Amino acid sequence: MNRTKIARIYTDAESLGGELVTVAGWVRSIRDMKNFGFITINDGSSFRDLQIVMNRDQLDNYDEIAHQNVSAALVATGVVKLTPDAPQPFELTAETIRVEGASAPDYPLQKKRATVEYLRTQQHLRPRTNLFRAVFRIRSVTAAAIHRFFQERGFVYVNTPIITANDAEGAGEMFHVTTIDPMNPPLSPNGEIDWSKDFFGVPASLTVSGQLNAENFAMAFGDVYTFGPTFRAENSNTARHAAEFWMVEPEMAFADLADDMDLAEQMLKFLISEVQRLCPDELAMLNRFVDKGLMERLSHVAASTFARVTYTRAIEILQAAVEAGENFEYPVSWGIDLQTEHERYLTERHFKRPTFVSDYPAQIKAFYMRMNDDGKTVAAMDCLVPGIGEIIGGSQREERLDRLERRIADLGMDAEQYRPYLDLRRYGTNRHAGFGLGFERMVMYLTGVSNIRDVLPHPRTVGNAEF
Amino acid sequence: MNRTKIARIYTDAESLGGELVTVAGWVRSIRDMKNFGFITINDGSSFRDLQIVMNRDQLDNYDEIAHQNVSAALVATGVVKLTPDAPQPFELTAETIRVEGASAPDYPLQKKRATVEYLRTQQHLRPRTNLFRAVFRIRSVTAAAIHRFFQERGFVYVNTPIITANDAEGAGEMFHVTTIDPMNPPLSPNGEIDWSKDFFGVPASLTVSGQLNAENFAMAFGDVYTFGPTFRAENSNTARHAAEFWMVEPEMAFADLADDMDLAEQMLKFLISEVQRLCPDELAMLNRFVDKGLMERLSHVAASTFARVTYTRAIEILQAAVEAGENFEYPVSWGIDLQTEHERYLTERHFKRPTFVSDYPAQIKAFYMRMNDDGKTVAAMDCLVPGIGEIIGGSQREERLDRLERRIADLGMDAEQYRPYLDLRRYGTNRHAGFGLGFERMVMYLTGVSNIRDVLPHPRTVGNAEF
Repeated sequence: MNRTKIARIYTDAESLGGELVTVAGWVRSIRDMKNFGFITINDGSSFRDLQIVMNRDQLDNYDEIAHQNVSAALVATGVVKLTPDAPQPFELTAETIRVEGASAPDYPLQKKRATVEYLRTQQHLRPRTNLFRAVFRIRSVTAAAIHRFFQERGFVYVNTPIITANDAEGAGEMFHVTTIDPMNPPLSPNGEIDWSKDFFGVPASLTVSGQLNAENFAMAFGDVYTFGPTFRAENSNTARHAAEFWMVEPEMAFADLADDMDLAEQMLKFLISEVQRLCPDELAMLNRFVDKGLMERLSHVAASTFARVTYTRAIEILQAAVEAGENFEYPVSWGIDLQTEHERYLTERHFKRPTFVSDYPAQIKAFYMRMNDDGKTVAAMDCLVPGIGEIIGGSQREERLDRLERRIADLGMDAEQYRPYLDLRRYGTNRHAGFGLGFERMVMYLTGVSNIRDVLPHPRTVGNAEF
Repeated sequence: MNRTKIARIYTDAESLGGELVTVAGWVRSIRDMKNFGFITINDGSSFRDLQIVMNRDQLDNYDEIAHQNVSAALVATGVVKLTPDAPQPFELTAETIRVEGASAPDYPLQKKRATVEYLRTQQHLRPRTNLFRAVFRIRSVTAAAIHRFFQERGFVYVNTPIITANDAEGAGEMFHVTTIDPMNPPLSPNGEIDWSKDFFGVPASLTVSGQLNAENFAMAFGDVYTFGPTFRAENSNTARHAAEFWMVEPEMAFADLADDMDLAEQMLKFLISEVQRLCPDELAMLNRFVDKGLMERLSHVAASTFARVTYTRAIEILQAAVEAGENFEYPVSWGIDLQTEHERYLTERHFKRPTFVSDYPAQIKAFYMRMNDDGKTVAAMDCLVPGIGEIIGGSQREERLDRLERRIADLGMDAEQYRPYLDLRRYGTNRHAGFGLGFERMVMYLTGVSNIRDVLPHPRTVGNAEF
């Protein structure tokens, strides 16, 4: 089908003015003035609509078109007329309009504004609304920008596995992947489940992180990244948690925690600048209807040098704030896990810009993080941003075989399960570091949307796997 | 750490000649000539190694370095010396070399050539071999090229869900996703599993395709694509099947089967040209050691206009071949599903170039494919390429509500489960089409590697979820 996309008319309006083009899209509104009328259509190529002008004396099927319902699919051929004095820069004067597919009067998304809660029940149709067209285009542009950022810097993209037999640690929060029939499971002589009869021959789960696998590849390619789905079977029904979400996990050989923070800062700024460059209309709409501080906040972050503070110093800052009368719900003392209220105080009120907090107490962090010389803290960092709190968590990894073995033993973990991971420390180990970015949290940050269900095409949460 | 990547020395050798740089990488080989020696290191940034020259009178720790094992991690500072008359264009004259992490003499990948079967038992180390460095860089470059191809054409990337409650049809071949304990499952009063007690409140599985969800988004954005993992619980232990693999699924509104074939042809050519452009060293190695026809075959495909033939005509061609003495294992008659031997005959011997076969009998194709006017065939296409056979399968979708409802009823499927899919035909339906590319099959095609286990970072197959 030889058609011109609406995005192209916006880009090439000058050269297309006066030209005959064919467009295809869905009706957003029709105004019938009896002998002429206006149709607004959108074809998804641009956030912006195209206005079509139709005249009764031009169209044989004027009445058929004038009576179409919202979301009908039309194919219109006409002349692009530049309208420098009108609100929109051009319109299409229709010569023919054909109904490709009608719509019905019971179309669930009529013009009146629907709540996001209602729209979650119409997930197959909600991408047609302004809100979701903005969110999902920004999601796509951000994903592409992530690939561009890493590829341009020579990082190799690695698809770490989704199904895993490792990670017995967090088993309580993982989904089982199985072909076993729970009504009739195979049993071993001792009456337990006989996992050797399951598809993989062992209990398998959905991954919670690709990091340990990514390290295998960082030891070959130097710089690598993952970008894929991860899963949590947590029974938490909040606006920030989904059972299925995407993660970006870069990993760099010959890099320490400072390199890691540099990379995170550069990446966040790049993603913001790409969305600003490619989605100005979407951002303007979101800034107007969803989050009035959005555009200013993004510009501020893109222009800031991120603050860097140790956890120990951050605790002092928070304690000083308490002494000065600040009221936190959770008490502050060295050793606590920072709560969102603490994180937001640091980034929004103390530093007033994105802030890296580093060198956390070892006991609140994962086994693979590198022990600092003080023997108490590890080379971990969180990146906190105004309006959200933590958006990135990363660390330098423990590259010293003896230290790592001791830590695995101290935590009562099964060293045999980590044999490959320990092998990386046996054969050419090196300082290395990486981080994880929750992709949906990034999209929420870039759009101002406050519920993770509204940045996932078809969200999966407790009790919900519809569509 | 302020280091220069080896890839950059290859790119900027002219300007770096005579400069002092620091490099970090892993030892591939060391030749100790007593008072001087040669170290070959690789840092993963380039397929090519760097040769370091060390002199005893320059290095305090000459003997320490000379005795390092393969895969030790070194940090070397020295001067880039251009060597226009040597096989390699430059070398590094070391001023200092430091051991970042030693390796052990039992390093499992010594220089002698290991079999791919053995290397599958060393998945955490195999990316350090030439073969796998070539394969996994090409995999990364191809993935990035897929995003670039679609983003440059205005396609919106959609992350369709991995966990799904739909697709009861293919249930026998799907993995269950559950938090139910099979030793103690919740039962309803009638003694069946009480799925309302499972995490999602219903039986859930891992997706086999994102297509139906992608159509939701094509009806809003016009052109979309997915690129994510898909799953099959098939008990087939072949060189071409994995339980977990990645798929690319574009979907275009206002497009028919011819548009679909155009897109597939452009995409395949683009992917080949990107790998040729960005991975010449990797291709040369693979062409030499893995598949001697690789580079010629890729160039041939990139330069060909793909053949297009209907299924009905293809059957005639195959029958004529049989009459002329061709011996197929599977008999040829109208209505059969083409076997690989038939596909390869068509693309390799009859057409001698990539070939689209279109308009297959309805009864061997999926319910959503558009019925042709003959009432017997559907607007489906497969793309066959020399050396492999089918690499892409696509179709124009049935956009007519009444036809689709009838087909769902004829096949005894549950219409209620397809309500959202049918809604797309109620509210502004339009001709639309898409296809699926198995990403690993594409990587196999681009590398000449014949086993899918060797193009997946950590393959999952029957009985195997290691690493």
